Order: sequence, then C-alpha cells, then structure tokens
Amino acid sequence: MERIYNLETIKYIGKQVKVCGWTQRVRSHGQIIFIDLRDKSGILQLVFTPKEKELYETAQKIRPEWVIGIEGVITERPKTMINPKIETGKVELHPEKLEIFSEAKTLPFDFQDLKVNLPVLLDFRPLTLRNEKIKAIFKIQEQIIYTFRNTLKEMNFTEFQAPMIVPSNAEGGAEVFHIDYYKHDAYLAQSPQLYKQILVGVFEKVFTVTHVFRAEPSITTRHLSEYISLDAEMGFINSWEDLMDTCEKLIKNIFSGLQNNCTKELEMYQAILPKISEKIPRLKMREAQEIIFQRTGRDNRKEIDLEPEDEKEICKFTKEKYNSELVFITHYPTKKRPFYTFADPKDPEYTLSFDLLCRGLEIVTGGQRINDYEKLVDNLKKWGNKVENFEFYLQTFKYGFPPEGGFALGTERIAKQVLGLENVREASLFPRDMERIDQRLSILQPKKKKKTKTSKKSKK
Amino acid sequence: MERIYNLETIKYIGKQVKVCGWTQRVRSHGQIIFIDLRDKSGILQLVFTPKEKELYETAQKIRPEWVIGIEGVITERPKTMINPKIETGKVELHPEKLEIFSEAKTLPFDFQDLKVNLPVLLDFRPLTLRNEKIKAIFKIQEQIIYTFRNTLKEMNFTEFQAPMIVPSNAEGGAEVFHIDYYKHDAYLAQSPQLYKQILVGVFEKVFTVTHVFRAEPSITTRHLSEYISLDAEMGFINSWEDLMDTCEKLIKNIFSGLQNNCTKELEMYQAILPKISEKIPRLKMREAQEIIFQRTGRDNRKEIDLEPEDEKEICKFTKEKYNSELVFITHYPTKKRPFYTFADPKDPEYTLSFDLLCRGLEIVTGGQRINDYEKLVDNLKKWGNKVENFEFYLQTFKYGFPPEGGFALGTERIAKQVLGLENVREASLFPRDMERIDQRLSILQPKKKKKTKTSKKSKK
Repeated sequence: MERIYNLETIKYIGKQVKVCGWTQRVRSHGQIIFIDLRDKSGILQLVFTPKEKELYETAQKIRPEWVIGIEGVITERPKTMINPKIETGKVELHPEKLEIFSEAKTLPFDFQDLKVNLPVLLDFRPLTLRNEKIKAIFKIQEQIIYTFRNTLKEMNFTEFQAPMIVPSNAEGGAEVFHIDYYKHDAYLAQSPQLYKQILVGVFEKVFTVTHVFRAEPSITTRHLSEYISLDAEMGFINSWEDLMDTCEKLIKNIFSGLQNNCTKELEMYQAILPKISEKIPRLKMREAQEIIFQRTGRDNRKEIDLEPEDEKEICKFTKEKYNSELVFITHYPTKKRPFYTFADPKDPEYTLSFDLLCRGLEIVTGGQRINDYEKLVDNLKKWGNKVENFEFYLQTFKYGFPPEGGFALGTERIAKQVLGLENVREASLFPRDMERIDQRLSILQPKKKKKTKTSKKSKK
Repeated sequence: MERIYNLETIKYIGKQVKVCGWTQRVRSHGQIIFIDLRDKSGILQLVFTPKEKELYETAQKIRPEWVIGIEGVITERPKTMINPKIETGKVELHPEKLEIFSEAKTLPFDFQDLKVNLPVLLDFRPLTLRNEKIKAIFKIQEQIIYTFRNTLKEMNFTEFQAPMIVPSNAEGGAEVFHIDYYKHDAYLAQSPQLYKQILVGVFEKVFTVTHVFRAEPSITTRHLSEYISLDAEMGFINSWEDLMDTCEKLIKNIFSGLQNNCTKELEMYQAILPKISEKIPRLKMREAQEIIFQRTGRDNRKEIDLEPEDEKEICKFTKEKYNSELVFITHYPTKKRPFYTFADPKDPEYTLSFDLLCRGLEIVTGGQRINDYEKLVDNLKKWGNKVENFEFYLQTFKYGFPPEGGFALGTERIAKQVLGLENVREASLFPRDMERIDQRLSILQPKKKKKTKTSKKSKK
C-alpha cells in the first residue's frame, strides 16, 4: 500500500490508508490510547482501543519519537473531539496494522514544549530541529532563498557556484580562516566578490547562493563564523542607484514570497513583515549621524561607521517619519570599505556604497565597484595588498570591463529580523562560532592537541 | 534610452535602439569598419562608414574586448551579407552615438579561436571564460542544477544548506583539508552526509546543492579538490531500490532538461545525450567483474572496487547489450564503503549501495544507510572512529529514525560526460587541485612561507 501524508488523510474519510511518522505524544485516557503521529506534513491522531487487543498492547509500549508505519481507516471524530488547532483535527485513524521502524531512547527534555536556553537548544540540534516552531524558521529560510533565485532568474541573471577555497584574503581584515592546502596557504572565502566580478565579464548579470566564512573573534547575537550569503552582481549599470533599485525589488519580492507561502510559519511567531514605504528611504551615513545627534544628543558624527545602537535609532526614525522599517544608508567613508569600492566622483572621501538596514540591523551591503584597471591596481597598493596576488582577478579589468556593482544579502539575518528572533544562531541549522561546531568545542576538543590523526578505516 | 540585448534587435528593424557589450572582432573592409559586438545574449554586427566621420574615426581606434555602448538604427543586411551562423545574421546596426566604457590591453592570444592547452586556459580563466564555447559549459551546469532542484522540489523534498566547516572526518580516509579554527581542529566537509541524515529526521526528504572538498594527492582527469555535489536523502523508503528509482528519474529529467533548454550549447560540442534504456540496467559489482573477465580476460573478480578501465568496459557492455550508456553497479563490498552504509541482510559482506556509471565514469554514488543506533555505534568503532566525536550525529538515531538512504551527483562529471570533455577541470569555473587555486601555486607561492600575514587595510 502506498503511504500518504498525514495532511492528505482529510480527503480519505471512510477509506483505508497507510501513514508513517514519529509518535510525538502518547496519551492514555482510560481504556483508549491516543497517539499524535507527526510527519513532514503535520499531525494525525491515532486511536487504539482494547477491541484490537494485539495492536492495543503494542501501543501501550510506544514512547515519544518512535518511528512507525500504520495502516487503518480514516474516520470523522465525534463532534466533541474535534481539535481546531491542527489541520487534521476533524479526523482520526483507527489502526489495523502497525509496523515499528525504530524505537527511541528517553528524551532528555520535552522538545515540543521547549524551555531550554540557546546552548542546550544547539547541543541537541538533531532533536530540537524536530520542534514545529524551530522547523518553521527553515521553511522561512528556504523560501527566502527560493524567491532570491527566482526573482533574479526572471531578470536574466545567470546563477553560478562560487569557490570556497581562495588563494588570498580579498576583503582585508584579519577575520579569515586559514587552510592547510597541499603545503601551501589558502583561505576560506570571506565573500564571493572577486568571482562575481570576473563573471560579470562573462555573463553580465550573475548571482550565487553561497557560504562565506568570518573568523569573528567575539560572540555577538548578529555574527556567525559561516553563513549563507545571497550575492548578486550586475554590469552595464546606468548609475549606482540601479543597484539599490534591484535590491529593493528583491527585498519586496522576498517579503511577499513569505507572506504568500509561509502564513502558518509567520503566525507561529506572531510575526508581521517589516513595513516598507513605496520607496525605501535613502540617507547618507553623515545625514543619518546628524539625525541621530538631533534625536538623542549622541554625537557620532565623526565616526567612520554606524554603531549597532545608531542602526537601531535610524530605523526608529524612518519608521516614524516614512512608515518604513527599512532604510538604505549610503556613502560610507572610502577608508571603511574594501579596495574595489567606487569612490563618489563628487566627494572621493565617500563611496557609492550602501547598507540596507531592517529593524535596526544591516541585512544587505553593496555598492558600485571600480572597473578601471589602473585605479584598481592603485587601490590594491593603497590598501596594503600585494598586486601580484591579484593578477588573476586583474585580468578581468585588463581586458575590458563595464560599469558595475552588486550586493549581498545575509540570509540568516533576514530570517532573524522577520521572525523577531533574539539571536542569529537560531536562524542557522548548524551554527558555527568560536565556541561551537555542532557540539561545544570545549567538550569536543578539551585541550588543543598537536595534530589530530585522521581516522583511517581498517582494511584487511 | 533603455538598453536592449543584441538578440532582441531582430524585432527592431528600422528602429532606434541602444545596445552594449564587448567588441569581439574588429574588421576593416576598404572604407567600412565592421565590429562584432558581444553581449550576454549573442553577437550583433555594427557598421561604421566614413559618412559619419567622427564615429568612424573613433571606430578606427577600437580594439578587441573594449566595452562600449551604442545607439543607432537597426537595418536589414543586404541579401549577400546575410550570415546564417549567428542569430542576428539578417540585421546590423548603424551607430549614431558611441560611448566607450572601458578599453582593453592587447590580448595574450585569440580567445575566440582557442588553441591553448589546459594550464593556459586556466591561467587566463577570466578571459577564456568569455569564449562562447567555454561559456556554454556553464549554461549546461546551471541547467543541471536547476533541474535537480526543481525535480526534487516537485517530489516534496526540502532544500537545505549544509555547513562546510565540520568537526570531524566522517567519510574516513586521509583526503581531508584541515582548518585552523580558533585554535581548534576543524575540517572542510568531504560530504554533507551526516547533516542530510540529521535532516531526514526533521523533513523526511531533503536535498542540497553544496560544495565538497577532497584533498586528492594526485592529478587525474576525474578529480577536483572542490566540487559541486548535488545531494539528496529520503526517509521511509520501502526498499533501497526506491533510491535508484528516484535517482533514475532525476537523471532522465536532467538529460531532458538539457535537451530542451541547451540545444545550442549541445550543438557547439556536437554532443548527443547519453542513451538510456527504459530502465537503467542494474548489475552487482561481482557480476560486472565476471562479465569483464568473460569479455576481456582481465581478472579483477577478487578486487573490492571497479578500476577506471572496468567502469569503461562495463559501460561498453551495457551499451551493446541494453542500448544504455548508463548502468547502476550495486552491492559494493562492506569494507569499501563508509561506516553508515547498510549491509545486505542476505550477505553482509556486501552493501545495499550503488554507483551510477555514465559512459565509463561514476557520476552518482548512493545507498541505504544504517538507521539503528546500536548498529551505528558498533560500526563507528569497527571503522576506527571515536564514538564521542559523533555524539551530535548519533542523537538522530537515539531518538527515532526511519529506514532511509540517499545519493550524491557530481555536477562537473555529468557536464564532462554529456559534452565529452577530456578533463573534469574544464567543467569547473575555477578548478582547485593540488597545483592550482586560480593561479598556479608554484607561481603564486614560490616557496612555503612560515606564516602568511593577513594584509590589513591601513587605518589612520
């Protein structure tokens, strides 16, 4: 018999079906045993009565998270037993045949009514991910990525795969992971930037869903050591404002994609999508600092970047003034941005770059890039890089390159801001930080060893 | 004026348009200068005559790979000038306005009529990727990935993002890259295997488009140090043959996706898609070895794996006998497969695993996995792993897990086999191997230094 999903059972009243899943809750009411069976689609109630003696006795042994397959008849529940909280609340299954695929050890805690702190939540990730509310975060993430791809594909962008192993540290800064690469030095990509640009020379408009790596030496609620970056880059722009226009279209599509496809998931978090005005406000960084000074008296007008509290304050301002929970901050100082950033011809101290803030947090960063070979070589030197390490990349500009730019969206941060999560780690399936790769490093590797031997399979 | 693509110009005869692109070829015929303008969509001929004196003089200076924007009128070519080889062969553009976005240095070789060997092709990747025939490979790759995703999405699989930084070396073997991870040991993922399984416990059916890393200590035409793995995993299988059925459906969809969407690209390589019989033949490894022995006299019947020459021979056999250029080889020896592979209950020396060979090369590997906690712990020990390093993963099996399995497709290998490329590197945008990350390592890092200082942007 072909297995059907729990949610499909409502179309099978009076019929024989086969369902499979996890025994989420087992309740004994007098002579009746109720089991909530969970599968990919949702919950279905199984009802065991002593009439079916053998099945009933088996059901008595079942504990939470056993994996079973059941054949039986779908019936309507008595009116008083209808459960409006679940989608199959009007039906139940009366088992006739039961197969146990897997038993489960006693659970360390009730993972459906989760009352554990974040470290424990992550220590037990294989289990806690089974919680409906936590699962919902990754349905949201899947949808964000799906809309990102579809929107750009419709706009004639080409999808590519960016390499993760890179020969040099392109973005500057020390937050880079080193790899032992056949006795040479290599690094984990901090961004697919150089490859995006090379490929603008090939496909004009490109995007990638990729992983980027930052050796963040501190623990914050906003940073991950490995995160999913949604990167786009486009050639033949008329102006750097084209980039913000495209980014704005993308974000609006992402939000409406969530609204249309993740209603249930948003409801679980009582999440309301961020308000966007018809056009997202665009403020220069110096203007933003002035506004913050006027509003709070906090004088950061000489700082070369916005502080986290500034980002929160300026979003409060645009929400009040423009009814927009998103705002583009533009014209970051040239010395704060990477070597390839395009300086504003009107004021070269500042760049044609932008961040998109959402509810107080940067979720996108982007800008126009230098497309002139000589200027790039010049900047590489100014930024303290060895030009010969960038010969490969520089070919792109030697052999004809259009005006262009791009941006990158932080997937986990978008999910965090939309759902109102406290920590970006909650929006990563398997978050990596300086204290954790799956398990806590302090548990996994109590002391730094000289060299871990790679285990080898025994061969006879 | 809004820019249009070259291919669109055929709908604009007699009309004013704006186009942009690279000047691929510049030819002077007596008094007329012809320029082939290349953009994302294809080639368009620009015609400059001395009548437009200023434009003509500018055109005289233009060299290959300059980036320009042109406004002008699209006209039909004289009948004798029609070029059936290009899609815009019936029209040409008479420029009225020209903007030079970027000049180009003299090209190192004619990258349209590529006659360079593979190392040079890769040394100049940013340039050689602009070649139409090379670009076609990555249109093929994009389409393979697109069909993989769409097919599985339609089959109710959930897409996820697998982490690349992992705490241990799960697959066994020494081909693993080590990362300096905040003074701890970490590795680059050799496969998303453990995460796929954990997520079967959450979403039942999952897939990911991911990067995997193999520190291959040798140079072959089949191996890359970083490649794109198309991974799927599914729970509640009735039998391990479900896995091959799903894989077969996927491969058939991928091939028909290429047939329908990449006609032009396949033609460039005179590529004919591999023949598949209605059902792909399935042979046990030992049967295959016996057939090879019968056909060639080569006696590898005691070997625990097929040699590359065996894989070629068995594909020749199935093509002759079943008119199929693909064949599943099943039941690889238990000691040849990773610790999580399900042993055949009828003969535990062999596993319920398979490889899919295409035209003599493995393009997929997969199998049923052990879903019993005690059995897994037992095998981890047998395979020489420390069980405590797998505590995180083992939670999955402690808390109820269905019968399941999965497989992984090698994207670059599929493209190689479909197009008949000689080396898998040709099917990777930026191939990494023991001699190269973009540039040759021998050039990039002539000698092993003690420690490369990460460059730091100068801050005042």
